[in-house]
Amino acid sequence: MPVIRFYKLYLSPGRKYVKTLRNLLGFVPGNLSLYRLAFRHKSAAQNVKKGVKNSNERLEFLGDAVLGSVVAEVLFKMYPFKDEGFLTELRSKIVNRANLNQLGRKLGFENLVEYDNRMIGATRQGSLLGDAFEALIGAVYLDKGYDFTKNFLITRIIKPHIDIHTLELTETNFKSKLIEWCQRHGKDVIFEHITNNEGESNKLFTINVNIDGETMGMGKEFSKKYAEKLAAEKACTALGI
Amino acid sequence: MPVIRFYKLYLSPGRKYVKTLRNLLGFVPGNLSLYRLAFRHKSAAQNVKKGVKNSNERLEFLGDAVLGSVVAEVLFKMYPFKDEGFLTELRSKIVNRANLNQLGRKLGFENLVEYDNRMIGATRQGSLLGDAFEALIGAVYLDKGYDFTKNFLITRIIKPHIDIHTLELTETNFKSKLIEWCQRHGKDVIFEHITNNEGESNKLFTINVNIDGETMGMGKEFSKKYAEKLAAEKACTALGI
Repeated sequence: MPVIRFYKLYLSPGRKYVKTLRNLLGFVPGNLSLYRLAFRHKSAAQNVKKGVKNSNERLEFLGDAVLGSVVAEVLFKMYPFKDEGFLTELRSKIVNRANLNQLGRKLGFENLVEYDNRMIGATRQGSLLGDAFEALIGAVYLDKGYDFTKNFLITRIIKPHIDIHTLELTETNFKSKLIEWCQRHGKDVIFEHITNNEGESNKLFTINVNIDGETMGMGKEFSKKYAEKLAAEKACTALGI
Repeated sequence: MPVIRFYKLYLSPGRKYVKTLRNLLGFVPGNLSLYRLAFRHKSAAQNVKKGVKNSNERLEFLGDAVLGSVVAEVLFKMYPFKDEGFLTELRSKIVNRANLNQLGRKLGFENLVEYDNRMIGATRQGSLLGDAFEALIGAVYLDKGYDFTKNFLITRIIKPHIDIHTLELTETNFKSKLIEWCQRHGKDVIFEHITNNEGESNKLFTINVNIDGETMGMGKEFSKKYAEKLAAEKACTALGI
């Protein structure tokens, strides 16, 4: 193995790229073409078959899932006395697009991502970095397996770059976000607590968000707070806020 | 190891439960308490600490993530020429609640799940099974690791019980679902194609679903079909359809 590693780093035709990746990732990659693919945005991709491009989008799909699973386990073990509502919320704060874009920027992906800037406006450029970050996780997973990827994510990404305790305290308050938006747009917003007629558990809360009389989101949770939050989040999504 | 296995199956105090699980899972479980927890619904749980119950909900959070990741990889490898929109859609057909409940029923979870039926109506009872299925995956993952869980899911669950090709063809058509609902409720629905003013890629489509003049969902995708589908799906979620 050290021979292959030596060849890759110092003799192979792709040695420059191998060194760049080694510096970025902390390990010598196996299958280089996976990493090249991870950094290729759709705008720079070629058609490989009718309707199929060799872009990073499929790897992004895979990497998103692997990242979700690793972060789920990290939080599960880090917060043994918190319920699943808390864990779900904290995970979405960690893996949200803005956070991943920022991470991609920190890691210097701007110099690695291949894209065609005639096709991409400045506003969308940032999200390329988060997409590439997820695709990179997909590449690492296919190249090295789950346990390696988990270890890589924890030691090289989460510990040095993500301050989970701070994220825990910063609240993405969908309820107040929604209320502000409604005030700005002159709309009435009501959080309606639906009484439970079905003889179900009295612990399950159903909250509807009504905006100008229209239901824009519903949340069903075992805690009233989470039900409201969920309903507000859905309304925010539906309204594109 | 065979000695421990023999002890667990034939001598240990929990041997009856071990045999039940072995028949269900195809392997002898390690940490029994994880599996007991996976089958304990919130309604039957005890408070272990202020605000924390020993129910299966945390394991469900973890299992849901691991399942999503395994199914992502299965589809990624099964459909090498399909794009991430296709993969995302097919995965959500596989891991949707109705499907997981049915799976839980098929596997005989009704006899395993612990719950208090005074607290649960008949309508909600079904979803206990899907929840327990996800929690079980969380338990297997903590007990045996990722590769074991992946192998278990593929050989014992996906291959024998999930017909991916049939699911691929059955369409969850959110657009027609939404249109039907609007007709039934006397509402106007319009799929509005937003023109792209930002000088961005002309390949990115933005579709708004307007219901009685209110935007209820937005979809942004590189294909018009997926953008419509996504917008319709969001509107369905927002309306609780």
